[in-house]
Amino acid sequence: MYVLMDIMVSPGGVGISVSPYVAHCQKIFQEAGLTHKMHGYGTNVEGEWEAVMAAVKRCHEDLHAMGAVRITSHMKLGTRTDKDQTLQDKVDSVNDKM
Amino acid sequence: MYVLMDIMVSPGGVGISVSPYVAHCQKIFQEAGLTHKMHGYGTNVEGEWEAVMAAVKRCHEDLHAMGAVRITSHMKLGTRTDKDQTLQDKVDSVNDKM
Amino acid sequence: MYVLMDIMVSPGGVGISVSPYVAHCQKIFQEAGLTHKMHGYGTNVEGEWEAVMAAVKRCHEDLHAMGAVRITSHMKLGTRTDKDQTLQDKVDSVNDKM
Amino acid sequence: MYVLMDIMVSPGGVGISVSPYVAHCQKIFQEAGLTHKMHGYGTNVEGEWEAVMAAVKRCHEDLHAMGAVRITSHMKLGTRTDKDQTLQDKVDSVNDKM
Repeated sequence: MYVLMDIMVSPGGVGISVSPYVAHCQKIFQEAGLTHKMHGYGTNVEGEWEAVMAAVKRCHEDLHAMGAVRITSHMKLGTRTDKDQTLQDKVDSVNDKM
Repeated sequence: MYVLMDIMVSPGGVGISVSPYVAHCQKIFQEAGLTHKMHGYGTNVEGEWEAVMAAVKRCHEDLHAMGAVRITSHMKLGTRTDKDQTLQDKVDSVNDKM
Repeated sequence: MYVLMDIMVSPGGVGISVSPYVAHCQKIFQEAGLTHKMHGYGTNVEGEWEAVMAAVKRCHEDLHAMGAVRITSHMKLGTRTDKDQTLQDKVDSVNDKM
Repeated sequence: MYVLMDIMVSPGGVGISVSPYVAHCQKIFQEAGLTHKMHGYGTNVEGEWEAVMAAVKRCHEDLHAMGAVRITSHMKLGTRTDKDQTLQDKVDSVNDKM
């Protein structure tokens, strides 16, 4: 099952600057070989369900190890059975209508 | 790793009424033995990370099998290392301040 | 336009305990006369669009005044034209299917 | 009060293809003169609170007029008082750490 995800990871108890923690999760997605693209409010990630979820879990585990005592992730998960579709396909589909 | 989750599952391509699909996911959480409580915009679920994620995956798989060609889930996932906390603890903590 | 909302307000830069801030937003919804119900990952609120949005804005303004230098709110907003529906109607509709 | 927003608008009762509706909201953000950038799971929008919220409301109103009987928007709203920050600043800050 292929999944299109969006994730915003919010570490707590680490002060105001959260960018080092967000950067670490980017590296996890990269090392996992997942297609991923950061935007201003999260990161689009896509791949097989198990691989994507393993990366999310590793992100929580690593950020706790880096000192974040509290982590909240906000995620969107999309699966479909009628056709293959990537996140870029979704963006292209909207651009085609404009 | 214990996780506090909130999930709203949105099946697409099934017409306006989505309640039978949402009800099916409630049964999945119930059968998985997870603490869960529905509200007007989703369901609070808590338990061990692997058990919670397996239930989410089964929810997508089953709803596709029931005819939903497109499913989007919106989730919040919270983990913390400083203390044990349930979703009810969070509600109680706010109520204590009022 | 009647709107069904779910909102989770996350103040940043205030340490680990956010419950006093969440409690303050509950009071704002209460004083605004909006139907509202807290759960483990946010609060369901419903009412006329302008009244609901004014309460959300006041929540951000007041929490900044209370010392939160950074606030992120996660919201769901639902409107429909085919029938009147409350958040309780949505819960009842799912329970009827179980 | 300047706000950084992310919004994903989901029209219901319109079949599987939602891209014409999403495209219309892009035009609304454009016409409102708001900084905006679409990604695979929504659109980053930023500007003054009142202008941003007026655009969101117009999006719901217009999509209902276009035939969507049910609309759910998922939004993130961020405000801060300690410094001026754009959505691009947030992306740059993470990239600097990588």
